[in-house]
Amino acid sequence: MEKDDFRKFGREFVEWLAEYMESIEKYPVNSPVKPGEIKAKLPSNPPAAGEPMDRIFRDFQDIILPGITHWQHPGWFAYFPANNSPASVLAELLTAGMGVQGMVWQTSPAAAELEEVVLGWLRRMLVLPEGWSGVIQDTASTATLCALLTARERATGHEANVRGLKVPLTVYASTETHSSVEKGVKIAGYGKENLRVVPADEKFAMVPGALEKAVREDIRAGFRPACAVATVGTTSSGAIDPLAPIGRICREHGLWLHVDAAYAGTAAILPEKRWILDGVEGADSFVFNPHKWMLTNFDCSAYFVKDAAALVRTFEVHPEYLKTGVDAVVKNYRDWGIQLGRRFRALKLWFVIRDYGVEGIRAMVREHIRLARLFEGWLHGHPKFELLAPVDLSLVCFRLNDGRPEEALNTLNKELLARVNASGKIFLTHTTLKGKFTIRLVVAGRTTAERHVREAWDIIRSEAERLL
Amino acid sequence: MEKDDFRKFGREFVEWLAEYMESIEKYPVNSPVKPGEIKAKLPSNPPAAGEPMDRIFRDFQDIILPGITHWQHPGWFAYFPANNSPASVLAELLTAGMGVQGMVWQTSPAAAELEEVVLGWLRRMLVLPEGWSGVIQDTASTATLCALLTARERATGHEANVRGLKVPLTVYASTETHSSVEKGVKIAGYGKENLRVVPADEKFAMVPGALEKAVREDIRAGFRPACAVATVGTTSSGAIDPLAPIGRICREHGLWLHVDAAYAGTAAILPEKRWILDGVEGADSFVFNPHKWMLTNFDCSAYFVKDAAALVRTFEVHPEYLKTGVDAVVKNYRDWGIQLGRRFRALKLWFVIRDYGVEGIRAMVREHIRLARLFEGWLHGHPKFELLAPVDLSLVCFRLNDGRPEEALNTLNKELLARVNASGKIFLTHTTLKGKFTIRLVVAGRTTAERHVREAWDIIRSEAERLL
Repeated sequence: MEKDDFRKFGREFVEWLAEYMESIEKYPVNSPVKPGEIKAKLPSNPPAAGEPMDRIFRDFQDIILPGITHWQHPGWFAYFPANNSPASVLAELLTAGMGVQGMVWQTSPAAAELEEVVLGWLRRMLVLPEGWSGVIQDTASTATLCALLTARERATGHEANVRGLKVPLTVYASTETHSSVEKGVKIAGYGKENLRVVPADEKFAMVPGALEKAVREDIRAGFRPACAVATVGTTSSGAIDPLAPIGRICREHGLWLHVDAAYAGTAAILPEKRWILDGVEGADSFVFNPHKWMLTNFDCSAYFVKDAAALVRTFEVHPEYLKTGVDAVVKNYRDWGIQLGRRFRALKLWFVIRDYGVEGIRAMVREHIRLARLFEGWLHGHPKFELLAPVDLSLVCFRLNDGRPEEALNTLNKELLARVNASGKIFLTHTTLKGKFTIRLVVAGRTTAERHVREAWDIIRSEAERLL
Repeated sequence: MEKDDFRKFGREFVEWLAEYMESIEKYPVNSPVKPGEIKAKLPSNPPAAGEPMDRIFRDFQDIILPGITHWQHPGWFAYFPANNSPASVLAELLTAGMGVQGMVWQTSPAAAELEEVVLGWLRRMLVLPEGWSGVIQDTASTATLCALLTARERATGHEANVRGLKVPLTVYASTETHSSVEKGVKIAGYGKENLRVVPADEKFAMVPGALEKAVREDIRAGFRPACAVATVGTTSSGAIDPLAPIGRICREHGLWLHVDAAYAGTAAILPEKRWILDGVEGADSFVFNPHKWMLTNFDCSAYFVKDAAALVRTFEVHPEYLKTGVDAVVKNYRDWGIQLGRRFRALKLWFVIRDYGVEGIRAMVREHIRLARLFEGWLHGHPKFELLAPVDLSLVCFRLNDGRPEEALNTLNKELLARVNASGKIFLTHTTLKGKFTIRLVVAGRTTAERHVREAWDIIRSEAERLL
C-alpha cells in the first residue's frame, strides 16, 4: 500500500460498512452458495507481487460477500445471535490499529486495568457478588473449560496439574447442557463417561433432586464429584436451572459450581429479570457473553470467579522471559486462562457500555423480550402451531402440529424450516426437545424491530399453510 | 450514537490511526504509568445513560493512551513482536463490521472456504508437505494444546476422551521450550511430572540422543511416550531443534511430533532460510504465528496437521442444534479446536498476503535478518559486549561483560536493561541462558529500519559505558 492508502481505503471501508449496515436487508440472511463455490473462485497459489488494494476490495465484494451469512441482519433469529454495534466496531478499529498484545500488565497497563474496571461494571450490572473477579475469555467454551480445570485442581488439591488425574472425578450437567461441557470434560481429562447427565424437568431445567441422587451414588461408588455445570438459558430451549438448590447441593458435597449463562446472562441487567440468577452467589464461577446479546463484537466472554487465586494457581507458569518488575502488585491476565497472548478486548466493552449506557442496553433487551412474547402470542392464537417450551426471555421454541404421527411431524417441520430459510429474509435454526424436531426463534439482533418479527411470522405462517 | 455518527467517527478514527502510525515515535515505547494509575482515573460504576462518542474518544486519548505500550513502535525489540500492517487493520475493520461468527460452514461459507484457501497459501509459502491441512487458532499456546490433546488421544486409541487418562503418558520437550508446553501438559491432564525436560546443546537446541535415551528409559519404566514438542526458534535464544533426527526417534517409538515455530516459522518463506524446517515432513503438527512476523493483526496462529481426521476426532461433538444439511461435505472448523465460536480471521491474512505479495513479505523478513546481523557485528566489535547465542534469524542475545563475577554481571545487566528501557525510545526484554541474565533484541517491527537499530545500539552502548 502507498503512504496515504490507509486513509483512502479506511474512509472507503467505513463508508462501505455504513452502507452495509443501512442496506443489510437487501442481502439474503443465509448465504445461498453451494459447498466449494467460493473456493473455486480463489487461486490456490498466493501472489508473488503485491496487488493494489482496490482490486483486493473488489474481490472481497465480488467473491467473499456472496458467501457471507449476515449475522447482523435484522432477520437473524438463528442459533444465538452475536450482535454488534457501531460503537463496538469503532473500538475494534482502534484495537486493531494499535496492535496491542496484553499478555501481562507491562505489555499495556491500560488494557489490564480497563479490563478490571469494565468487568467490575458488568459485575454490578448483573448484580453478581462483590468480591468476585472478572476476566475476558474468547468464548464461553473456553470459560467453561477454565472452570472444569479449576474444579479438577481444587478436587485434587492441585495434584492433577502435577501428577495427572489419578482419582476418578465426576462432573454433572443436565441433558440440556451445551455441548461445550462435554468437550471441556474430554479436554480436561475427566473422560466423557465421568460426565453424569442429570435429568431435566418438563420445563427442561435440571432437577436438583436428581443431581443430589447422582452425587450420592457416585460418592458411594468411590468417585470424587468435582464439578457441576448449571445453565441459565439453555441453547435448545432457554431453560433456567435453579441455581439456589443446585448451589446448596454443591456446597454440601464440595463440588465446584459453574454457571453457563452465555446467552441469557445479559437479561439479568433488567431488575424484572434478575431472578434468573437467583442463587448465583452460591456458585464458584459464572460466564456470559457480551458478544451474544450485549452489542459487543464477537469474541468477548465475561468470566467471573469467586476465588481468583484458585484460577491463577491452575494456569500460572513463570518462565524467566515473562517476568516483570511489577508482577507482585498487578494482574497479569496470562495466568487467568489458557492463552498467553491476549487482545485488548476491554476497549470495545468500554465503548459499548458508555455509548448505550446501562439504560440503553436495558431498553434493547426489554424490547427483544417483548417481541418474543408477541410472537409467542401469535403462535398461541393459531390452531396448528404448538409452543414447545416456556418463553422466559427472547427464545421461542415451536413447531407446526396438525395431529399427524410424531415422525411425520418431524419431517413436516424440517420441511417448514427449510422453506422458511429459503426465503432469504429470515434465518432460524432447529433443535430437538423430547425427540421433537423443534424450530427456534431468538430475538436478539440489534436492529431487529417489530416489523421483522411480524415478517417472520408472516413467512412462517404462510409457508406452514402452504404445507398443510 | 446518532445515525451518521458511524461515518463521522469512523473517518475520525481512521485519520487518528493514520496519524498514530506516522507519529508513533513520539510516544514512549513502554508506557511509563504506575500500577493502578489508569484504574484510578476510571469510574467504578457504569454510566446509566449513554454518553456522546466524542467524550468517549477524548477519554480514550486522555486516559487509555498513556497506558498503552506501543507494540507497533519501530523501537519495539521486546519479547517477540506482534507486527501488524495497514492492510491487516483494514481487514479487521471489515471483519468487525460484518460481525460474522464462523463456527460452522453454514454460518459463513466464505469464512470457512477462505480459511482453507489461505492456509493452503501459507502451506506453500513455507513449503510444508502437500496433504497437510491448516486451521487458524488464536495463539500458539492453543495450537500446542491441540497437539498435546490429539497426541493423548492417539496414544490411548481415543480412550482418554472417553475414560479419562488411565495410562501414564509422557511428553518430551527441551529445557528451552516455551512455557505453553508446560501449561498444555497440565491442562491436558498428563501431569507436569510426566513432562520430560530434554537437555539442549551449547546452541540451546534439543539433543536428539538425549531425547532417545529419555524415551527408552520411560518405555522400560512402564510409561507410554505420547508426544514430543520441538521448537524452531526458541523464545529465549531463537534456537532451532533438529527436526529430522527428532522426527526419526518419534516415528520409531510412535510419538506425536509437534513443531512450535511461533516466531521463526515466517522465516521459512525465504529459500535461504527454509533449512530451519528441514525434517518437518516427519512431524505430525506444526504451528507458526502470522501475528508475530507476518504483518497480520494479533491474534492469528496457523496450525497445520498431517492427519486432520485425528484432530477432528479429538474435538468433535454433535449436538442437534449445530447440525446442518451439508455437514458431510464441508469443513466445520468448530471441530478443529477448543472454541466453538470463531472469528473471520482468514480475511486479514488474505488481505496481507495479497497486499504485500510473497516477495514483499520476504523483503521485510530479509531486511530484519540483515539488521539483526548488523547489530550482532556491532556487539562483536565492542570489547565489553558478549554474544550469548548464535544469531540465525532476527533475535540477538547478549550481555555486557567486563569480567566481574557472574552474580555481579547479572546485576549489572539488569540495571543496563532498566536504563535502556527508561529511555522510552526502545523496549527490550530479558531471559536467562545458562544462568546468565541475558538481554534480548528482536528485529521484527514492520517499520523498524536501520536507523532504529542504530539508535538502539547507541542507547545500549552509551548506557553501558556510563555504567562501567
